[in-house]
Amino acid sequence: MKFLEEQIIKHGKIISKDIVKVDSFLNHQLDPYILDTISDSFVKKFSHLEPTKILTIEASGIAIAMLMGVKMGIPVIFAKKKKPSTMTESFYYSEVFSYTKKEKNGIVVSKEFLNNDDKVLIVDDFLAMGAASFGLIDIVKQSQGEVVGIGIAVEKGFQQGGKILREKGYNLHSLAIIEKIEDERIYFRDN
Amino acid sequence: MKFLEEQIIKHGKIISKDIVKVDSFLNHQLDPYILDTISDSFVKKFSHLEPTKILTIEASGIAIAMLMGVKMGIPVIFAKKKKPSTMTESFYYSEVFSYTKKEKNGIVVSKEFLNNDDKVLIVDDFLAMGAASFGLIDIVKQSQGEVVGIGIAVEKGFQQGGKILREKGYNLHSLAIIEKIEDERIYFRDN
Repeated sequence: MKFLEEQIIKHGKIISKDIVKVDSFLNHQLDPYILDTISDSFVKKFSHLEPTKILTIEASGIAIAMLMGVKMGIPVIFAKKKKPSTMTESFYYSEVFSYTKKEKNGIVVSKEFLNNDDKVLIVDDFLAMGAASFGLIDIVKQSQGEVVGIGIAVEKGFQQGGKILREKGYNLHSLAIIEKIEDERIYFRDN
Repeated sequence: MKFLEEQIIKHGKIISKDIVKVDSFLNHQLDPYILDTISDSFVKKFSHLEPTKILTIEASGIAIAMLMGVKMGIPVIFAKKKKPSTMTESFYYSEVFSYTKKEKNGIVVSKEFLNNDDKVLIVDDFLAMGAASFGLIDIVKQSQGEVVGIGIAVEKGFQQGGKILREKGYNLHSLAIIEKIEDERIYFRDN
């Protein structure tokens, strides 16, 4: 999506050869026009699959997911980040490894809100190693629902998450795929 | 707002005389129609004040805030929950006491996104003792911006947050105010 690539170039801050900060529009301040356009693009891409639920993870994913939920008329569920607890009987529970924090974190979704009839669209702002996506997929599997698609705003193409998800056959759609960051420039993959 | 009171009665689960769970539409699963209606009501209430930014706190507040941001054409900022760190020089930092967890948590907003020109509308899903609202107000004060209004979906009228905010003269608008929970019934304040 040319539009999102342009926003990343315009507003993103290159921190290192692995990191572009997009705090000013995607994950701290949220730009209404950019996020609305992102959500439109996902709605267009995934509506024909007739998802029954959108699943994301707190916090940044919620903004895009909610705009989509209203446009598609389906509920949004956000997985909560939570330490393992004894309340697991009423929750689907999975573990997500944070590569930045070098620690495992539990994520939970109440069993009430996902079941085997659900066609689930997973949405998130970022995809790098794919840890959050794998955790959300695991939760959908536990519910015996079906993952019909995965919508990602910004994929770091130089990390492995996207590659693995595509190899496993998931219907992954990333709006902007960063191929590499070099000499203060961001290179995108044609997609 | 009659509509929201009806949703709370219909979907809320009374846990104790202090707690109604609204997980099924407001803070875990997010109902697109209910949240869209809530956001419409806030837009109608606050637009004439011409806010320049909407400020909320992760995670549940983001959904309502983002729908409003798109309708009003203004950015949303969500304060991040974070332990105090050495990066405080570029952040506004405040502390929020969690009465459920009995602990203080730091919240941060990057200094980049709030300044003394800003007319800030604070939005959140719940108001009880007001800890989150006071933290967000403190952050706006540090930025020397102005709090033009506070929009809350569900206020617990039997706790002190709303009372204190009104006494201090803040333009607080709560869509549903729970007066008490008694004999498995929820009573709302006329407002």
